[in-house]
Amino acid sequence: MAAVRAYLDYNASAPLLWQAREAVVAALDVAANPSSVHGEGRAARRLIEDARRQVAALAHAQPQHVVFTSGATEAATTLLTPQWRMGKAALSFSHLYVCTADHPCLRGGGRFPADQVTRIGVDRDGLLKLDELAAALAAHDKEQGLALVAVHAANNETGVVQSLEQIAAVVKAAGGVLVLDAVQAAGRVPLDMSKPCADYLILSAHKIGGPKGIGAIIAAADLMMPTPLVTGGGQEKGHRGGTENLVGIAGFGAAAFAALEGLQTIENIRELRDRFEATLLELVPDAVIFGRAAPRLANTIFFAIPGLKAETAQIAFDLAGVALSAGSACSSGKVGASHVLTAMGFDEFQGALRVSVGQATDTQDLELFRSALAGIASRRSGGNRAA
Amino acid sequence: MAAVRAYLDYNASAPLLWQAREAVVAALDVAANPSSVHGEGRAARRLIEDARRQVAALAHAQPQHVVFTSGATEAATTLLTPQWRMGKAALSFSHLYVCTADHPCLRGGGRFPADQVTRIGVDRDGLLKLDELAAALAAHDKEQGLALVAVHAANNETGVVQSLEQIAAVVKAAGGVLVLDAVQAAGRVPLDMSKPCADYLILSAHKIGGPKGIGAIIAAADLMMPTPLVTGGGQEKGHRGGTENLVGIAGFGAAAFAALEGLQTIENIRELRDRFEATLLELVPDAVIFGRAAPRLANTIFFAIPGLKAETAQIAFDLAGVALSAGSACSSGKVGASHVLTAMGFDEFQGALRVSVGQATDTQDLELFRSALAGIASRRSGGNRAA
Repeated sequence: MAAVRAYLDYNASAPLLWQAREAVVAALDVAANPSSVHGEGRAARRLIEDARRQVAALAHAQPQHVVFTSGATEAATTLLTPQWRMGKAALSFSHLYVCTADHPCLRGGGRFPADQVTRIGVDRDGLLKLDELAAALAAHDKEQGLALVAVHAANNETGVVQSLEQIAAVVKAAGGVLVLDAVQAAGRVPLDMSKPCADYLILSAHKIGGPKGIGAIIAAADLMMPTPLVTGGGQEKGHRGGTENLVGIAGFGAAAFAALEGLQTIENIRELRDRFEATLLELVPDAVIFGRAAPRLANTIFFAIPGLKAETAQIAFDLAGVALSAGSACSSGKVGASHVLTAMGFDEFQGALRVSVGQATDTQDLELFRSALAGIASRRSGGNRAA
Repeated sequence: MAAVRAYLDYNASAPLLWQAREAVVAALDVAANPSSVHGEGRAARRLIEDARRQVAALAHAQPQHVVFTSGATEAATTLLTPQWRMGKAALSFSHLYVCTADHPCLRGGGRFPADQVTRIGVDRDGLLKLDELAAALAAHDKEQGLALVAVHAANNETGVVQSLEQIAAVVKAAGGVLVLDAVQAAGRVPLDMSKPCADYLILSAHKIGGPKGIGAIIAAADLMMPTPLVTGGGQEKGHRGGTENLVGIAGFGAAAFAALEGLQTIENIRELRDRFEATLLELVPDAVIFGRAAPRLANTIFFAIPGLKAETAQIAFDLAGVALSAGSACSSGKVGASHVLTAMGFDEFQGALRVSVGQATDTQDLELFRSALAGIASRRSGGNRAA
């Protein structure tokens, strides 16, 4: 690897914030099981409940409505199930509506059988087709059971921010229940569960500067919950069994607290991102930036360089000291085009590159990006001439 | 809390070993997603694969047969399912056989419907009734599907170590598949998957001095695996979706390495435990120690003080600076007798107390235990006299 490197892959995983690091290191000394009733156990319990308040605050939700999970994927698999409970009564969803541009953990349908899942499309800007959603929900047969809708708030690849109020209104009007994958949105756009919004949010700590391996479900109320995915010792009020990931939860809480504060300076990140975008268009005037016509996260650019395969460019950037993604991290290394690009109707592009910046990104990273891109762009024209 | 405290609750959660702490702290600086293909991502991947080798080594297993989970509870819920796969072919278990003294995450049956679960009893020493298991398996209807057996290797409350070779022989003879909950056994008794043993092991990091929130399934071979519980981005070769808990896995690896070494000095822990036991019998000659006639873990004492409720004694110990459990941690705070004691036929005892020691336990802890117990024992006789 180059000695000086630019890490431009925050959407895959954000570096640990110092606040989260401190919380994690402090939690390492808490030996006990949070379910133990002795003093040591109660100290561990306090750490968890403090973090629960911090995570709830990020979404202006109630702490008692936060259920910690091992990450967003587990949270999605937990929520996306036909079998729910309202108190002790069973409740059944007969169909799930997801989005073609959702993260695989939603798009896959979770615990729903494949024939009970419908995927709603996005337009060329990456925005969910509201009319298609409304039509699908209008055709939903309520006699069979309730309708569950699961959509990303902001796209992990393009950064496109969905029209959340409108989606919520459509789902509510149809009597459906809305799960919002807020993994990429958290800390980048305001989330307010105290207003009519989603019924359930999915969060991941490591996308906001916390540790990997911890996430949460946040419910708007405590009436309905999915049947637990992980069953065992009755932790998390019975919603999620297993000894709690103490250091992960402590780090998540601290990161959530910092992310809520960070929202106030998000425009600084947008300005820096825009300088990356200007540099891209300066050196590669024919670069195609996806989702640019839609509202986007302040930190993301998803782009293609015509005539250059994304995987090839990604490797060239890596060798030049710049870490960025070709598509999302979890599908990196897999052959095939980005399902998000396909969903947006850009089948002609063989993948795309994602720059995603964050708190620690600075102008030195920008300069590294510029010099790497200059080299890659010059080789492209050379290749074009030789052809 | 008292200024000087004795932590005697290793079976609930062991304090983090310094080796695990170092590994966790080092992993905090690894920002990237282990699925990312850039240099930072590959560095994260290396940490995971190094830890996988260390965890495999603890059970003399192959690294490629280790699947990391968010803990033992998730591992159990994953394994205890009727739906398995052999390559791409579906495979079905029609019945699950667990043990009445298993941890709730096995005893509950995981993803099996309640009517497909049979609980095999234990004798008064806490040992699984082999004849009962053999009879149940002989009556198993193979035409309906395979038989899955899930048993703890060592009991979390009593420390009783099951007759593993005999259990494996019974299950094999009946053509069943054996899942062994090795959570409490790991690092305390040798585990060797290279010999005929269990088909699957369940491990938890925080019981061997690693962090909480990370565990593993270790398979003896890679032929058959359960349908994944957590689905999403295809991590862990498709067996478990979700971005990997990097710091947890790194800490687990280091703890597993230390636990394997620690097996060589386990007799030191047994000697110390025996001094706790001698102290107990000296101050409370009528104390009842459960499972003492059976092979037991070197670190555990599960006992009752006649005439004294376990919860009351537990609080008194806590006030005197000694952290120990009344039953297992995850069921602490719940009303009712220990299901392990009930399974062993000791219905007359209202719970019991567990002392579980480990690497950092020393004679100062023993002295604190002695003085706390002396106070509690004297109050008991006082109460008896007053009655």
